[in-house]
Amino acid sequence: MTSPLHPFDQAIALEEQATGQYAGHTSEAYWNAISPFGGATAATLLESALHHPQRLGDPLALTVNFAGPVQKGSLTVHATPVRTSRSTQHWHMQLLQEGDAAPAATASAVFAVRRPGWRDTESDMPSLPPAEETVRMTPPPEIPFLSRYALRYPAQQSFQPGDTSRSACWIEDVPPRPLDHRSLVAYCDVFMPRIFLRRGRVPIATVTLSINFHIDAAALLETPVLRALGVARANVFHDGYHDQEAQIWTPEGRLLATTHQMVWHRDGT
Amino acid sequence: MTSPLHPFDQAIALEEQATGQYAGHTSEAYWNAISPFGGATAATLLESALHHPQRLGDPLALTVNFAGPVQKGSLTVHATPVRTSRSTQHWHMQLLQEGDAAPAATASAVFAVRRPGWRDTESDMPSLPPAEETVRMTPPPEIPFLSRYALRYPAQQSFQPGDTSRSACWIEDVPPRPLDHRSLVAYCDVFMPRIFLRRGRVPIATVTLSINFHIDAAALLETPVLRALGVARANVFHDGYHDQEAQIWTPEGRLLATTHQMVWHRDGT
Repeated sequence: MTSPLHPFDQAIALEEQATGQYAGHTSEAYWNAISPFGGATAATLLESALHHPQRLGDPLALTVNFAGPVQKGSLTVHATPVRTSRSTQHWHMQLLQEGDAAPAATASAVFAVRRPGWRDTESDMPSLPPAEETVRMTPPPEIPFLSRYALRYPAQQSFQPGDTSRSACWIEDVPPRPLDHRSLVAYCDVFMPRIFLRRGRVPIATVTLSINFHIDAAALLETPVLRALGVARANVFHDGYHDQEAQIWTPEGRLLATTHQMVWHRDGT
Repeated sequence: MTSPLHPFDQAIALEEQATGQYAGHTSEAYWNAISPFGGATAATLLESALHHPQRLGDPLALTVNFAGPVQKGSLTVHATPVRTSRSTQHWHMQLLQEGDAAPAATASAVFAVRRPGWRDTESDMPSLPPAEETVRMTPPPEIPFLSRYALRYPAQQSFQPGDTSRSACWIEDVPPRPLDHRSLVAYCDVFMPRIFLRRGRVPIATVTLSINFHIDAAALLETPVLRALGVARANVFHDGYHDQEAQIWTPEGRLLATTHQMVWHRDGT
């Protein structure tokens, strides 16, 4: 008897059609307001390389460019190992849907085999009360994917614009799921758009997302991570675009991933 | 009479061979120890999209993946506009050299037309003494490209390993050249590898570099920037790889670009 797939694994599941060509489907459970949750789309693109028979090592970096709208329904992902050396591998991926003249998303990834060596974390882990003392954000029913994450903040989120875009929270899959590189990608995109914290709710769209990974798969298997600490902020809001920088930490203070994205926002000024 | 090209413009110059296919050449002036300065290679890849007749707007984001060694000599860059919408455009680029079975570098870029809107910089500009009170790093003759930049620090750089990888400096082209998106790309990669500041000099190679741009070309033309403040740090050193995050500011406190990269380093431990 096998246990049923976690909804996240269902959402990003790919079926091989040919070497490097995979069929998938958007997920109701990980649906955003008018398109799939970008973190699930990004994880699907990473999954195509993880799935590929020529894959070498673990993800070291991923960039996903959201080039056009993803529609509800079937999708095809093409993954190509562009160049492979002894210990690194460079990938190019594209996500296409029927009837589209151009990809809805493109991506590149670097995979690597790490050798044990010197380790040091220079960044300071943000301080946050223990998860048990924090308050789970009430997921808005109009954004289905937010019900798939327990985001726990020091106090109930007011969604009132303030003078900083920085926020930190505990992040867990619902139901719980041990973290791997796929879900780590999704965690990197789970934060409320930073513009909401400064100007209130406006239409937004992430146009590009990059992630650097600081852990390998064996370490995540050896010590399962069921809850992570996320911290996000914007550096600049400028003429309809803003950036977002974020970090994902284990509760024990290990920095798993650092991520940057550029977000379009509607600007009425 | 036209003035001669700045050495940087010579280094990244491309000649159109066909739409989206460009011929270039590595530069002695921007040579690193055993390969071209990665910032010049990255700028060459951006240049291919800037050069393209279908180009829309200004660079918003760039990711460059250094997939294999670039040799001294001729190179070809292919630039493809993957998808264009009303105000954004997604690009894929590849750099190839004769005899190579696979690209030496791949890249993606997002271009956008910005509309005037709300502006705010949340990050704090690092404090650094005025450039006149700082000391220019003596460029090591074995790294030719460093003679093409005046990097000015509060005190002469000792290159002794310490307990932080963070450093800030003034950056100028030699000879002076007003900043544009091309040279901004190069500035993002001009920092000494962060591992040198922690462990001393070891072999390194940037494997991937991403940049988010927070300014458009018109603004850089309107108010020429001849000197920038750069600040860089690593978050994590882990099993043969470390990251680097950096920011490029104008002296007046405008944040022009944020960037992060993953760097392989030889690790004897």
